[in-house]
Amino acid sequence: MKIAILGTGSVGRSLAGRTSQLGHEVTIGTRDPAATLARTEPDQMGNPPFATWHRDHGDVALLRFAEAATRGELIVNASNGAASLEVLRLAGAAGLAGKVLIDVANPLDFSSGFPPTLLVKDTDSLAEQIQRAFPQARVVKALNTMNAGVMVHPASVANGDHTVFVSGNDAHAKSTVIDLLRSFGWRDVIDLGDLSTARGTEMLLPIWVRLLGVLNTAAFNFRVAR
Amino acid sequence: MKIAILGTGSVGRSLAGRTSQLGHEVTIGTRDPAATLARTEPDQMGNPPFATWHRDHGDVALLRFAEAATRGELIVNASNGAASLEVLRLAGAAGLAGKVLIDVANPLDFSSGFPPTLLVKDTDSLAEQIQRAFPQARVVKALNTMNAGVMVHPASVANGDHTVFVSGNDAHAKSTVIDLLRSFGWRDVIDLGDLSTARGTEMLLPIWVRLLGVLNTAAFNFRVAR
Repeated sequence: MKIAILGTGSVGRSLAGRTSQLGHEVTIGTRDPAATLARTEPDQMGNPPFATWHRDHGDVALLRFAEAATRGELIVNASNGAASLEVLRLAGAAGLAGKVLIDVANPLDFSSGFPPTLLVKDTDSLAEQIQRAFPQARVVKALNTMNAGVMVHPASVANGDHTVFVSGNDAHAKSTVIDLLRSFGWRDVIDLGDLSTARGTEMLLPIWVRLLGVLNTAAFNFRVAR
Repeated sequence: MKIAILGTGSVGRSLAGRTSQLGHEVTIGTRDPAATLARTEPDQMGNPPFATWHRDHGDVALLRFAEAATRGELIVNASNGAASLEVLRLAGAAGLAGKVLIDVANPLDFSSGFPPTLLVKDTDSLAEQIQRAFPQARVVKALNTMNAGVMVHPASVANGDHTVFVSGNDAHAKSTVIDLLRSFGWRDVIDLGDLSTARGTEMLLPIWVRLLGVLNTAAFNFRVAR
């Protein structure tokens, strides 16, 4: 499948590397590819420059957001949640129309420092904002409740015995996403229902960031024991 | 230990029954004991009338909130989250002063139907509101992330292999609560830190109510896999 991943941070890289390894034709979208490749310093999250990662992943193309979206059959929003609506506008409604759009972002607001708060919550979610802004995209919220490494290698934590959630209004789109998740190694996938259930998964972030502090590792995830 | 449980619903009954069974001297607090005992209809959550439960738990006293609080060495707020501040005012600051106060309530707002929203969230929590209103109480948030039955019999789900969180500003109070939780059978207790971390556990409720709908049972809980 042709997959376009919007975002060059650790989440975008992790998803691009794994889907490429699984045989998909992967493009990463960014605002300005030349500028992205020209950076020589670690980003604000401490990730190495994109060019360093890209040297080991030459099979992944780097294009502008709109070109990447046009090329992709399935799109992943792996941008910073605070910038996601703008990134998707740059990708363009035409490039998203009719396609499955996996939203893995969280609307975290770090403007007051740590811990972050949520820019939208409880009566709305980033996923629903995206769906309203791009009504022809088939938005599925997934993978936003764990670290980038755990997203694509669930077996790296507790032998994979933990849970990933999906939310969305389009049953076929969710089925496509669930197949992709299973190809990553996910065994416990819970379909929570329509896209409004993404409010619940986005609101997991406040406890996630506190657990990160207490456990001193990002190698953890929620499991729904039952 | 003398334990006072404020609230006569399923959570209050569950905690009262279990702590009494474990040998504690338990009092349930209510607004008007005579009125509580006079009810003959199921409550709005479908629980049998309190008197029915009380016939099998004659060792648990039923007193007014203030009398119960005065008698208790450890207090549990098991009232409806939307009413908790009022209930605790009726219990009285004097009766709470210096005591461990376990807050198991959630600030759910059902005024717009299902799913409920949260009356307070993200930048504040019910637990912090209670701590500010009763600065001499030693508030510990715990047990608010699972069903009443699971709270006191964790082994009833997945052999007890799941997690309970505690939040609070007073290390000794948390230690007392953790001992009580272990006596219920809890093995995985995560101390998240100060009381502001209760924002995270209260914000688990939106996904909890959706899981209740999808799983068709309340016999589940979150486990932090790591």
